[in-house]
Amino acid sequence: MTSSSSAPSPFNLPAWVERLVQDQKTPLVSAHDRMGLVIQLALSNVEQGIGGPFGAAVFEAQTGALVSVGVNLVTVTNCSHAHAEMVALANAQQQVRSFDLGAPGMPPHQLVTSCEPCAMCFGAIPLSGVRSLVCGARSEDAEAFGFDEGAKPKNWATALQERGIDLIRDVCRGEAVVVFQEYQKRGGLIYNPRRGR
Amino acid sequence: MTSSSSAPSPFNLPAWVERLVQDQKTPLVSAHDRMGLVIQLALSNVEQGIGGPFGAAVFEAQTGALVSVGVNLVTVTNCSHAHAEMVALANAQQQVRSFDLGAPGMPPHQLVTSCEPCAMCFGAIPLSGVRSLVCGARSEDAEAFGFDEGAKPKNWATALQERGIDLIRDVCRGEAVVVFQEYQKRGGLIYNPRRGR
Repeated sequence: MTSSSSAPSPFNLPAWVERLVQDQKTPLVSAHDRMGLVIQLALSNVEQGIGGPFGAAVFEAQTGALVSVGVNLVTVTNCSHAHAEMVALANAQQQVRSFDLGAPGMPPHQLVTSCEPCAMCFGAIPLSGVRSLVCGARSEDAEAFGFDEGAKPKNWATALQERGIDLIRDVCRGEAVVVFQEYQKRGGLIYNPRRGR
Repeated sequence: MTSSSSAPSPFNLPAWVERLVQDQKTPLVSAHDRMGLVIQLALSNVEQGIGGPFGAAVFEAQTGALVSVGVNLVTVTNCSHAHAEMVALANAQQQVRSFDLGAPGMPPHQLVTSCEPCAMCFGAIPLSGVRSLVCGARSEDAEAFGFDEGAKPKNWATALQERGIDLIRDVCRGEAVVVFQEYQKRGGLIYNPRRGR
């Protein structure tokens, strides 16, 4: 493999997200506090009219140091991959300069997301090298608001665990759902794949 | 939703790929010919030492006009999402300036890929708006060379069809597998999520 001239491909974050991250100097030790930041990102994303009511972040699992964040950027970037988890993972990999957040010599990384992953993000998580996943809202919460979580295998939680990824669910689930309500109240777009039409 | 200042997020392609695409002025009418281009991309990606032995392209399904291409850029971009299919889909969406390749008023789009999608790409395909998928090698072919296709639902083909996405398999399957052999012969990296380690 050569190191090619092909440029890196992070998802560029809005300036307010960059500022929020720069201000977060203190490590966040508990899953609750990490989720608090992620839900704040999701809510700000709605309030600023940027995109869907989802936020995510990558932390060094043990220290709680913030590595990267993501918000849903699907509509503003014209990119259906730009889910909060995908943005956070891609930006973490840029940050550590490796496509593998679990590469030898690296501290274990954790993805914290305001909602359980859709089928795409579920597939992306083991590829990313993170060692643990913390989720707020459940997939069925997102589906109740009209989002299509895709055809995720029924045993997705086990499938992650089989690939060495610990899963913690329902962290601040209620607060994460409040962000969906806020999005709905503002008439936010429910972009979806069509279903057979 | 406002149209934010957040920049678009295509995957930048190496110059040789851009040239190859610019030279492809003639629409490719048959699935066989479309796959031929995609396998050429996969092979060139290996020969140039850019990344994994995978190529993909998005076409206007009916005319065969080429919209975008992708090759595997995982290692050179430090981005585990940068599978050929993801790159092609993201670049097609940039091209048509929509996160939905199946938006009203748009011609139907087709994704052609040199290998059946992994779990991530499987999840991404319905979100992208493409109406059909053409595959070369089978997932088990890639797995025989050590690639981890992830925990894709067993009924993935049906799941796509339920979301209105037609599937054509085994187009030039043998030729696609030859590219895997070439990659292996050159000692190409098999990057994988760890499995429980």
